Amino acid sequence: MAPIRSWLSIEPQSHFSIQNIPFGIISTPKNQQPRNAVAIGNYALDLHAFSQGNGFSKLSVIQPHQAVFSQPTLNAFAALGRPVHRVVREYLQSVLLEGGPFPDVLEQNKSLQQEALVPLDQATTHLPMQIGDYTDFYAGLNHAYQVGVLFRGPANALQPNYKHLPVGYHGRASSVVVSGTPIVRPTGQTLPNPAAEKKEPVLSACKKLDIELELGCFVCKPNTMGQPISVTEAPEHLFGVVLMNDWSARDIQAWEYVPLGPFNAKNFGTTISAWVVLMDALAPFTTDGLENDTKVLPYLDEAGRKSHYAIDLSFDLTPAGGSPTTISRTEATQLLFSFPQMLAHHTIGGCPFKVGDLLGSGTISGTTRDSKGALLEATEGGKHELQLTGGGTRKFLEDGDTAILSGVCGREDYGLVGFGECIGQIQPALDLKF
Amino acid sequence: MAPIRSWLSIEPQSHFSIQNIPFGIISTPKNQQPRNAVAIGNYALDLHAFSQGNGFSKLSVIQPHQAVFSQPTLNAFAALGRPVHRVVREYLQSVLLEGGPFPDVLEQNKSLQQEALVPLDQATTHLPMQIGDYTDFYAGLNHAYQVGVLFRGPANALQPNYKHLPVGYHGRASSVVVSGTPIVRPTGQTLPNPAAEKKEPVLSACKKLDIELELGCFVCKPNTMGQPISVTEAPEHLFGVVLMNDWSARDIQAWEYVPLGPFNAKNFGTTISAWVVLMDALAPFTTDGLENDTKVLPYLDEAGRKSHYAIDLSFDLTPAGGSPTTISRTEATQLLFSFPQMLAHHTIGGCPFKVGDLLGSGTISGTTRDSKGALLEATEGGKHELQLTGGGTRKFLEDGDTAILSGVCGREDYGLVGFGECIGQIQPALDLKF
Repeated sequence: MAPIRSWLSIEPQSHFSIQNIPFGIISTPKNQQPRNAVAIGNYALDLHAFSQGNGFSKLSVIQPHQAVFSQPTLNAFAALGRPVHRVVREYLQSVLLEGGPFPDVLEQNKSLQQEALVPLDQATTHLPMQIGDYTDFYAGLNHAYQVGVLFRGPANALQPNYKHLPVGYHGRASSVVVSGTPIVRPTGQTLPNPAAEKKEPVLSACKKLDIELELGCFVCKPNTMGQPISVTEAPEHLFGVVLMNDWSARDIQAWEYVPLGPFNAKNFGTTISAWVVLMDALAPFTTDGLENDTKVLPYLDEAGRKSHYAIDLSFDLTPAGGSPTTISRTEATQLLFSFPQMLAHHTIGGCPFKVGDLLGSGTISGTTRDSKGALLEATEGGKHELQLTGGGTRKFLEDGDTAILSGVCGREDYGLVGFGECIGQIQPALDLKF
Repeated sequence: MAPIRSWLSIEPQSHFSIQNIPFGIISTPKNQQPRNAVAIGNYALDLHAFSQGNGFSKLSVIQPHQAVFSQPTLNAFAALGRPVHRVVREYLQSVLLEGGPFPDVLEQNKSLQQEALVPLDQATTHLPMQIGDYTDFYAGLNHAYQVGVLFRGPANALQPNYKHLPVGYHGRASSVVVSGTPIVRPTGQTLPNPAAEKKEPVLSACKKLDIELELGCFVCKPNTMGQPISVTEAPEHLFGVVLMNDWSARDIQAWEYVPLGPFNAKNFGTTISAWVVLMDALAPFTTDGLENDTKVLPYLDEAGRKSHYAIDLSFDLTPAGGSPTTISRTEATQLLFSFPQMLAHHTIGGCPFKVGDLLGSGTISGTTRDSKGALLEATEGGKHELQLTGGGTRKFLEDGDTAILSGVCGREDYGLVGFGECIGQIQPALDLKF
């Protein structure tokens, strides 16, 4: 990756360097119609306005498809396929490049800048994709092990299938929301006295509200029902990556999850970051994930291809009116299975995918206490308290707390490829009367 | 329910008597655009053609909304709400009624009959709703117990939560298909020798392919994220009921399902019947479900309201080129929780629903061997063989087998309210090379 620069002034610590060009959906006070945009430095480049203003005049391949940029989701753009994503991203880089080939398109076109470059703080971001189905995997080996210890003890922490296949479950698509959306503390059935012989659940506001630090990956190419996607073909089906917070109600989960898996403990909300970082932007950061000491079956064998990403991840917690405390830092390499493997496994029986379907990685945790992707692990199920820098402690999330996930690749001198933030603030539970 | 008759000739054994008026989506050789219709006797009444031909001239309340009937799904009609469903259904009954108030609308209007009454065998049915999210519950107590015995033994057959809440999991919406769609036998990881200490899975075509006899219920009224739907409000959120076959790959399921529930064992296909029987059509058949010997929490308490349905259900199996064998007969009363309870539980934590979301009841089984809603139960996990009437035996489904679910309420002398059939034929597994 060459250290290229933009004629736009971009701070070195910006997640949205010219190396990135992530796609999202914005609206503005002037035009409240949600539409496609890319993030660059402190700006959103409004692709509807850009295409209306002939910004794509030098890219003939996209001319017949420009209407996609006026859509309220990225699905139509995603459906054009990876070769198109590639040329559009590279074209936008060339338009933004210092000393680039097309200075007349935007750099010297003040009126188009006026129309199309929107300061990020004046743009409202929206859910970037219309999500048909959302699947959450469990590929964070350290997380699976540590949670398994808490729920089932060390002997059964990892089930026998764990290293043979990417374990996953179907999630709830309707409650996937964009970063910034408040999350209401869920109410549900919990067991006040789990050790008692007679199980007597109560209806209660969740007392063990948690985050899960994950990556999400969007699908851009469908398959026909009955036709698997091979692990080799899978990368052409992947659009881009977001940060994901799979909010989890641990007390509800512990009571409900047998035998069919988590349900209400998860379906009250899942937050994703607003900007989709394209697979091409992540390509320079491919690396290995965790080594699998079990030989996987050939349909999952990537033959040594590096299909994980060197993304530095962090989880900060800010109490109401307070300042952030970094709870943990980890890396996206702490995964046993890659997105291509997840997609190959998910479709091996013929399950069909649509454009916009979402895959979650599972919670990403390291092995040390300050590298956990969930409070459940960091506090060992609430046994330990975490100190906040501004005073106070936490076992789980309190009302008013804001959870902030962040992720970034690369080096400042080359230009960062980051995800921005994936945030959500906890609102109090409803006062339900029955 | 009065024994009303139509001027259209309808056989007494028809599922689509004038008491029913189920809604679906059809296309025809003459008009290949999928559109709304109702089934009546051996006909589909094409509601697009009916509304174009002024068929709704006597129903002023629907006039501003007639465009919904030209849509390729029922979502827009469903979104009009239950009071509208009620008047539209009753109006269509009055138009079809012998000696009814509006003979000029259709009975005496041969040209509209020509346009709008399509013989069912000339209509292609399509998936009736665009499904956002699909959730499958597990409310069939007898099934849950019997499968629990097979998977975990009698001591842990029912988990402690089972009678306190309707256990459910998120399913895969993208693979819900309409009756008649072929189902490809899935390939997946299975364990040839489950008893061995070292678990060595293989990739194999499913050897234990099964059906699950269920009801499905569509949602017609959304809720805001964070806002539960009470069990009292829930009926206004329910659009109508279909038969559902939740095809299941038992060998894949047994290996993959811990700890997060069934995944590839289910997501290769779920078949629903083509015609949605509205809640109003089912209202005369409300009754009690199975008695719950555990007192449920107040948010699930229906205060004695009868919210189950007296639907006679059957499962027939027809081998390729053969004749059908009735494998089992059971009733929809074999459920511990009702659809209003499922919806109240699903949303108690704030999970949002959209119009078109689908709830599955879980497999409906009686307690005798000839009343099981799954082969897994009827053969006790493959221990017994079932005799087919035309010769041959079955433990699980073979290639070419057609599974036929059927469901019906009422008496022939009053006019049946039935679901038609929910069928699917098994195609051989793909020949996958790795």
